Amino acid sequence: MMNTEHKNAFGMIGLGTMGSNLLQNIADHGYKCAGYDISADKVAALNKLNPKAIQGFTDMNDFTDSLSSPKVVMLLVPAGKIVDGVIEELLEVLDKGDIIIDGGNSHFIDTDRRFKDLEQKGYHFIGMGVSGGEEGARRGPSMMPGGDKKAYEIVKPILTKIAAQVNGDPTVAYMGERSAGHFVKMVHNGIEYAIMQLISETYEVLKNGLHMEHEAIHTIFEKWNEGRLQSYLIEITRDILAYKKKGSEHLLLDDIKDEAKSKGTGKWTSQAAMDLNLPIPIIDIAVSMRDLSKYKDLRTKASKMYPDSGEIHYHNKNDEHVTKLEQAFYFAMVSAYAQGMHLLHRANEEYDYKLNLDLIAKIWRGGCIIRSAFLEDIYAAYQKDLNLKHLFLDDVVHQNLLKSIPGIRTAVSEAAQNGIAVPAYAAALGYFDNFRSEDMPANLIQAQRDYFGSHTYELKGKEGTFHTEWEAGK
Amino acid sequence: MMNTEHKNAFGMIGLGTMGSNLLQNIADHGYKCAGYDISADKVAALNKLNPKAIQGFTDMNDFTDSLSSPKVVMLLVPAGKIVDGVIEELLEVLDKGDIIIDGGNSHFIDTDRRFKDLEQKGYHFIGMGVSGGEEGARRGPSMMPGGDKKAYEIVKPILTKIAAQVNGDPTVAYMGERSAGHFVKMVHNGIEYAIMQLISETYEVLKNGLHMEHEAIHTIFEKWNEGRLQSYLIEITRDILAYKKKGSEHLLLDDIKDEAKSKGTGKWTSQAAMDLNLPIPIIDIAVSMRDLSKYKDLRTKASKMYPDSGEIHYHNKNDEHVTKLEQAFYFAMVSAYAQGMHLLHRANEEYDYKLNLDLIAKIWRGGCIIRSAFLEDIYAAYQKDLNLKHLFLDDVVHQNLLKSIPGIRTAVSEAAQNGIAVPAYAAALGYFDNFRSEDMPANLIQAQRDYFGSHTYELKGKEGTFHTEWEAGK
Repeated sequence: MMNTEHKNAFGMIGLGTMGSNLLQNIADHGYKCAGYDISADKVAALNKLNPKAIQGFTDMNDFTDSLSSPKVVMLLVPAGKIVDGVIEELLEVLDKGDIIIDGGNSHFIDTDRRFKDLEQKGYHFIGMGVSGGEEGARRGPSMMPGGDKKAYEIVKPILTKIAAQVNGDPTVAYMGERSAGHFVKMVHNGIEYAIMQLISETYEVLKNGLHMEHEAIHTIFEKWNEGRLQSYLIEITRDILAYKKKGSEHLLLDDIKDEAKSKGTGKWTSQAAMDLNLPIPIIDIAVSMRDLSKYKDLRTKASKMYPDSGEIHYHNKNDEHVTKLEQAFYFAMVSAYAQGMHLLHRANEEYDYKLNLDLIAKIWRGGCIIRSAFLEDIYAAYQKDLNLKHLFLDDVVHQNLLKSIPGIRTAVSEAAQNGIAVPAYAAALGYFDNFRSEDMPANLIQAQRDYFGSHTYELKGKEGTFHTEWEAGK
Repeated sequence: MMNTEHKNAFGMIGLGTMGSNLLQNIADHGYKCAGYDISADKVAALNKLNPKAIQGFTDMNDFTDSLSSPKVVMLLVPAGKIVDGVIEELLEVLDKGDIIIDGGNSHFIDTDRRFKDLEQKGYHFIGMGVSGGEEGARRGPSMMPGGDKKAYEIVKPILTKIAAQVNGDPTVAYMGERSAGHFVKMVHNGIEYAIMQLISETYEVLKNGLHMEHEAIHTIFEKWNEGRLQSYLIEITRDILAYKKKGSEHLLLDDIKDEAKSKGTGKWTSQAAMDLNLPIPIIDIAVSMRDLSKYKDLRTKASKMYPDSGEIHYHNKNDEHVTKLEQAFYFAMVSAYAQGMHLLHRANEEYDYKLNLDLIAKIWRGGCIIRSAFLEDIYAAYQKDLNLKHLFLDDVVHQNLLKSIPGIRTAVSEAAQNGIAVPAYAAALGYFDNFRSEDMPANLIQAQRDYFGSHTYELKGKEGTFHTEWEAGK
């Protein structure tokens, strides 16, 4: 038997690039750690990386025997049944009091079930969202752990060190109870879908609306990334818009098929929001436009039947329109974050997660895919008022949004006239114009429902529900 | 024991207005029938309606004993656990070979489960969507039965007679296997949500964009209902826009609270479509705008922080704009039906329901809430080509849509400039402009996904998936 101090402080199941990179990150911070995978090749590759600090195993018993107590095992395996299978296997070799961390993109409902099940069996379970991609895993991800708080305290020293650091603060914090971590990560991904869709629509406007060359578009994203739109997603878009294969003047982007794939977390966000009756239309449209992109055959046919109706004619000069477009992007991006934060606020009420929205904004400022300069404003807004009901009501956001309204109105209006598709921009504006309506036309919907289904309606300033025999009024 | 010929041909559980009206409808067509409810008051009320033909029961045994064999029992009770409870109760008193019809708005997943369960136990189960509201139930609903086809043949004579009739054809037909009926009804309701949202946005434009009085708005809907927009929902909107309480010049509509309620079927449609990766953004936005309407407090606050930026100024004269708006409504309404039909087409592939899309359009032409003149065009389109992949590809629809494009462009563009919220119109246009794009900007999304997550991408005209070290290009 090994001496305890030589044992590994952290175990990882699933040695894809993410798992392997996280182990290297952990080892860099002075911890001995272990990895397990059913693939002997992956284990062999792991064993070559840092033999003094990282041990790879293909045998589950050897793997868990190598860990110090309480044993900490993190899973980075595909969400779904595989997670349940691995947990079942683990229960045969772990002791009560050991800690299982699910670091994958599990659905929060599954995490709730697993948390309850493992708690009853005497194991500690942490559902943890991890964002930042492969590079983040290696150099510092953003991590959203939720579930067993005592167990979190045990792994906190490691997680704090391997996280990204923003102004000296690590981008990891205990999110809340049960599935809080995976819920927060899901919403993170929903916002990510929305912003990616907005960027793709921006690219569409610049390319097919304003007929700009890719160099000019690259320069716009470069410039935007130096201002208030600074963010990881704008930054990588800038790079993508400059990437050419060696010896070619041709943009790689132009050769990539326009069928967007997804792992489903954006869809989950929209579905979960609908279950909470909480509107997040920018995320919804991002999900459905990815879906539409897959219907390439239909689109190709339709493109011939419904060609552009004439010359595209933007009223402003390109420079002026790009200035408006920057406002529009700012407006829509803020709206995407606002809808996501609103969903977190609502989920917190419904599921009693005990979330702190300021902490969530804080750890999203670095390491993760949606990190951005604007997250500082979100963080500040919730620090000022932890119970802020909606980001649009914050003073600073309010002032900045007001100045951006002309931009979003022009962007949507010009695109609509010119046949350029900007559904996410339009969803942002439609949401906003309803959000700022003391009276929505939903009274008509209620009247219709009462007319055809006797569903009753409420009256302004009166208690109770009412029904009318509408046909009698004819 | 009663003589068989005196027994009741049809039993109904749940004597709300819908259940009671359907029984009266059945009795009108010469059938003896029975009703059951736990509420003695409701049973007493039923017994007064048509004592020679309709018997009410508060005892389940007496109720089922009164039915001829095979016994046909229809449930019109709230969707969810109550349905399971009633079925459990029924299994104690029914015989194998008897027929249970769930006529409520059950979720199709529940219907699949119940169908399988009851089939194994030897009972016949029909999941049937019923549309038309209380008036439809009394005078002729549209009915969408699915599941056990042999059982349908047994109840067909009754259902055919009580259905609405369009050009001599009843608005009932066997939809398909298992949960097909409830799936079709769910999509019907999704389309209903979308069209109601479009009408409410139209009302908003006319009232707050063009500053029209309600008499003028009423006249517009009256006129529209006499043209190609003729439909039940436009018709009742016309009535609602004229309804005043006795002795008042004040529109009742103006007093109704603008918080739209829902029973959840619109949400189910959006969630189910997302599970099938099938885009229906007009329905999605209708769901989320109903949800937003409930945040009255937030909206009231926001209305003061984000007031209208100035005078509303539509470029066209009102008459001209109303002409454009009629085009826009036509365009968006067609798009809502098209998205719903596309969802049915996709669900049919995935769930192997054996749907006939022409039959669905056929039975929607009368009795149901979304009946409209345009359903004749849909019926004709699928009769011409049962495998039509999308309604936009049909010749007739194509020609009519082309003429309506200027209208939708103007409607969305002017509303965006003037701060009038038209998110469903905008979703229709954004969907269309992407649908008619041979190339969507989704290539950028794929490049981003590969950049941050090594998710790989595909290339145009090449097999396989590819990955790039994008950062190396900087």
